[in-house]
Amino acid sequence: VMAAIESVIILGAGSWGTALASVMAQTGKRVQLWGRDAGLMRALGEDGENRRYLPGVRLPEGILFESELEALQAADAVFWVVPSGYLRALVERAGALPWAQAAGVWVSCSKGIELSSGMRMTEVMREAGGGGLPCAVLTGPNHAEEVARGLATAAVVACEDEAVAIRLQAAVSCPWLRCYRTADVAGAEWGGALKNPYALAAGMAKGLSLGDNAIAALVTRSLAEMVRFGVVMGGRAETFYGLSGVGDLVTTCYSSHSRNHRLGVALGRGEKLADLLRASSMVAEGVPNTKSLYEAARRAGVRVPLLNEIFAVLYEEKPPALALRDLLARDVRAEGEG
Amino acid sequence: VMAAIESVIILGAGSWGTALASVMAQTGKRVQLWGRDAGLMRALGEDGENRRYLPGVRLPEGILFESELEALQAADAVFWVVPSGYLRALVERAGALPWAQAAGVWVSCSKGIELSSGMRMTEVMREAGGGGLPCAVLTGPNHAEEVARGLATAAVVACEDEAVAIRLQAAVSCPWLRCYRTADVAGAEWGGALKNPYALAAGMAKGLSLGDNAIAALVTRSLAEMVRFGVVMGGRAETFYGLSGVGDLVTTCYSSHSRNHRLGVALGRGEKLADLLRASSMVAEGVPNTKSLYEAARRAGVRVPLLNEIFAVLYEEKPPALALRDLLARDVRAEGEG
Repeated sequence: VMAAIESVIILGAGSWGTALASVMAQTGKRVQLWGRDAGLMRALGEDGENRRYLPGVRLPEGILFESELEALQAADAVFWVVPSGYLRALVERAGALPWAQAAGVWVSCSKGIELSSGMRMTEVMREAGGGGLPCAVLTGPNHAEEVARGLATAAVVACEDEAVAIRLQAAVSCPWLRCYRTADVAGAEWGGALKNPYALAAGMAKGLSLGDNAIAALVTRSLAEMVRFGVVMGGRAETFYGLSGVGDLVTTCYSSHSRNHRLGVALGRGEKLADLLRASSMVAEGVPNTKSLYEAARRAGVRVPLLNEIFAVLYEEKPPALALRDLLARDVRAEGEG
Repeated sequence: VMAAIESVIILGAGSWGTALASVMAQTGKRVQLWGRDAGLMRALGEDGENRRYLPGVRLPEGILFESELEALQAADAVFWVVPSGYLRALVERAGALPWAQAAGVWVSCSKGIELSSGMRMTEVMREAGGGGLPCAVLTGPNHAEEVARGLATAAVVACEDEAVAIRLQAAVSCPWLRCYRTADVAGAEWGGALKNPYALAAGMAKGLSLGDNAIAALVTRSLAEMVRFGVVMGGRAETFYGLSGVGDLVTTCYSSHSRNHRLGVALGRGEKLADLLRASSMVAEGVPNTKSLYEAARRAGVRVPLLNEIFAVLYEEKPPALALRDLLARDVRAEGEG
């Protein structure tokens, strides 16, 4: 049995990785935060702040900042906090290192489905190097900025091994971050991946000034499609109705903190995707997610009219106004059938 | 079998009654719009606009404006569009009149539960005078202002009699207002009533600047409580996951159009309920709803921790900050259990 988690490695020094490092350092864990940009990691140590990805948040003392994977020391848990498209490459580079294989659990904090394989992130982790280790997911409606600023937040840990889940839950929780747990790893991962494209669509509706009634209709249909698709892929319906499904969906659809939402708004206003992607230093997971989810639905033979329209906007230059009109106007056999 | 609905009476000339009159007049129905304020109804006729409740929206030609219940002429359907607390009195006054008894269907557009009886609005209609007539519900995430301005909207008609539901669906739908139907009247009514208190809570969280993560956690738990309570009261879970449940919930929780949301925001900022109610000409249904739902839950023996805290704020002077803190911090046995 794994002991309590007292030390963690966080791979990825973006906003969420930095926020997690801050929270866990404040609750007394030994924290190593790795980022591939040596200059950025040096600046974090010197400034006590991640000015690029989490500006304005003072980081607590004691975090070790590192940009050499080989220099990391063994820890009880490894958190993988990189964009979903980069996870496999990072696991291939780092997964065989001694500290990685010595960890009691690997935790995926990435929301997405791999394009080439259709795999969930924990499946990618297992296949690419974590075969023998417990894998878990940390997900939920968690804007990094708010967690880092101490605002009340609820998250979800998903792990098939309940003993590991309980330890992870204890490690991540703090007075303002409450962490629930579930054994439904598939449901937690499909919910987290699917909400991103739907948030793009809600953002487009907002950018097009379609109104709150239209956005409510879109969000409702997004949830129905998420459940229909996600259950086929092995998740449990109740998981999609919880924090990692509908909770993450609504906050991403309505919050201006969300990069996916903001990108959708800009697309709705007529800006071009290529220009938006060039101008942004952060990755809006919804763009690659839409492609991998569209492909996964095709392979599984699931009807996903919303994903199809979002795909058409992002990859086939369909005007957002036309896509939304087609979505809101199409005949639906009965509510819930999509 | 009832014929197609070609004429309607709309009782209540607030924003939603006026918007419905506008939509149905534009699709060629003969529309009589009744309001109890003779001066307002005269002004509607003269101005072609409801400056008090739906300012800026030009009403189509052909609507008959009336302030005398006895002067209304027979029509195929009667829409009752009054605050839930006034419905019984209006049915008692008007339900026995010839046009009311001659109608093919009564449609409740009120969202609430009667305080004294714990009855749903269609149950109140039946008991107070509509015993022999088909009763239906029109509900969903439908801000009147947006419907009146022609923005895409999805609504729900609930009626146990499918033939009547199909006719109502046809009568209310227009190119920008899509109307779905369900036979689950209880689910549609409990969803519509419950979302109002939860929107007050989300508003309070916003007024207290608790952040989007906290609001997402609240909305998720609101949905879980809505389903748990509503299923005990006879609704089907799938109805609460549709437009009349989660759809109406999220738009009321996130939209600044919503009176309940705005009232919650003001309470969260420290304003006093009595002052807010005095200053407003519109009824925020969430205030009486909270009391009747709290009582109904007590009678049914259902655990409703969210409703209890909202009740404590509105009726027992509990500070919103304390209520929200207690809600976000309390121990939850497992996600979904509330």
